Amino acid sequence: MNRLTVEKTAAFLRENDGYLVLTHVRPDGDAHGSAAALVRILRSMGKTAYILYNPETTDKFVPVVSALWAPEGWEPETVVSVDLASEGLFPANAVCYAGHVALSIDHHPSNTGYAENLCLSGERASCGEIIYEIARAAGIEPDIPVAEAIYIAVSTDTGCFAYANVTENAFSTAAKMAQAGADIAEWNRILFRTRSRRRIALEGMIYSGAEFYFDGKVAVITVTRRMMERSGCTENDMDDVAAIPGGIEGVVCGITLREMTSPEDCKVSVRTTQAVNASELCSILGGGGHAMAAGASPKGMTVEEMKQVLLRELERMMKGAGVE
Amino acid sequence: MNRLTVEKTAAFLRENDGYLVLTHVRPDGDAHGSAAALVRILRSMGKTAYILYNPETTDKFVPVVSALWAPEGWEPETVVSVDLASEGLFPANAVCYAGHVALSIDHHPSNTGYAENLCLSGERASCGEIIYEIARAAGIEPDIPVAEAIYIAVSTDTGCFAYANVTENAFSTAAKMAQAGADIAEWNRILFRTRSRRRIALEGMIYSGAEFYFDGKVAVITVTRRMMERSGCTENDMDDVAAIPGGIEGVVCGITLREMTSPEDCKVSVRTTQAVNASELCSILGGGGHAMAAGASPKGMTVEEMKQVLLRELERMMKGAGVE
Repeated sequence: MNRLTVEKTAAFLRENDGYLVLTHVRPDGDAHGSAAALVRILRSMGKTAYILYNPETTDKFVPVVSALWAPEGWEPETVVSVDLASEGLFPANAVCYAGHVALSIDHHPSNTGYAENLCLSGERASCGEIIYEIARAAGIEPDIPVAEAIYIAVSTDTGCFAYANVTENAFSTAAKMAQAGADIAEWNRILFRTRSRRRIALEGMIYSGAEFYFDGKVAVITVTRRMMERSGCTENDMDDVAAIPGGIEGVVCGITLREMTSPEDCKVSVRTTQAVNASELCSILGGGGHAMAAGASPKGMTVEEMKQVLLRELERMMKGAGVE
Repeated sequence: MNRLTVEKTAAFLRENDGYLVLTHVRPDGDAHGSAAALVRILRSMGKTAYILYNPETTDKFVPVVSALWAPEGWEPETVVSVDLASEGLFPANAVCYAGHVALSIDHHPSNTGYAENLCLSGERASCGEIIYEIARAAGIEPDIPVAEAIYIAVSTDTGCFAYANVTENAFSTAAKMAQAGADIAEWNRILFRTRSRRRIALEGMIYSGAEFYFDGKVAVITVTRRMMERSGCTENDMDDVAAIPGGIEGVVCGITLREMTSPEDCKVSVRTTQAVNASELCSILGGGGHAMAAGASPKGMTVEEMKQVLLRELERMMKGAGVE
């Protein structure tokens, strides 16, 4: 595997042709935006380029990518992946390209190096920012569709610039896309200021049932199968649900309990501040993760049973750490 | 009244001393951030400068401004206002300075010109951006407290860059504040990723009670006195509540009904897309406003009575406009 600078990546893109761009399972705005921007940049170089259809594309991103999907049966010469850290994240219809990716453009430090060439900037908040740097290195100014695709990438991966991963470069890239004519107000409306009726109904039930323990330091929300049915929500509607309890004032440990296929097939997501180790807490249920974000999926336990186990363990941990 | 460029404003600030900075009633992040940044910039010029205490300062902004409040009884030489469009918006303790404001720095095109000198940039999303331009014109680079104050101003006035008013300049100013060392992640957490338990409880009740009419095109939410009491919310917790129904997918007219001091002292806020004229709708209740944001406070009507009147009028308007 060769590591390429953005300049070398621009040269690579000029030298080859017949591009197919791959995105990851459960594609997000960075995946779609990066792919759409790259295909349009390649076409402006005179290349043939398409995005491989991603079967999990959600409605709001269809207008960004659908005109760029490869025709069925078309055979690429050069396969490129964007925002795609490992072959394990290939959608089913991309598995045939495993071992044949010529170039991976990514911002995940965990990229496994599965591609022949890798352009990686781990300090970027979004892959879309790297696509823009490659375009600049190739001497290409973004037109409006490219600018909107890059804006979609950087804005979604930073939660509209509100997440802790936002950087000077994320803001300055957004500024340049605004200058290039991207309709920022309209994309913000679509991406960040609109919630579905289903989601509103579910949030109503979640908030009404929120429970607080240890003087408000621990918040627990529960999403049951019945709540999913009553609201009409599916997995597509569950973006950022696990962030809800940790986003409440004074909470140092936010716990999200979910019933999945049955009342005894449940999972928990935990988000904490530095006061509580989320991975240590989840280990009591056989799970793990990072210090401030972890989870567990123990078999054969109800949400109520999981909650009791977690609260007992939290009492022990918080006493030990002097958080109480 | 003289209009000053940012360069002339920088020169004015260098020439005078003994500054007191005024902010508006119900001060927001732009008011506090602009005032804090300006006072710190003036002090770095060697000037004496304070913010006039604003009695409506909410908790999260206290750390931004409290160290800069003028001592009681201190007599200013030069009174400056920021983000303050008219003398009608002076807090009670600033009324004594009406007619004596030497300089107003503002981004509201509606500024009444009450000050001797006016530095107005109506195209800026926040007053904080203008403060930064003045600092640059004065040759002053923001230190971390100034950068954080300006970041607070621009990020809050654009709803963390999600509102329709966001511009290239808002993004590029944020990029420069990040570069200057502002702790963007921490301020985002405080300002945009934390909700109070009271607010969560109220949103739960609001979402659970949301009503939809005309095939989901009209959403109505109601906030009763009982809901305020049960949740513990006060006016301080009501930021952006009127934006909730208009932020639901497919809604062209979002109606927020509120009981104020009694069941027959109610008000309505209406947010619409171009499909419905909000001001025309509110005129049926004696109110008005803009085409896409309007309100009314008819006396002696309950929320239920207001809702029936508005729905009848909407039926007429939507039939007329062919929205159905």
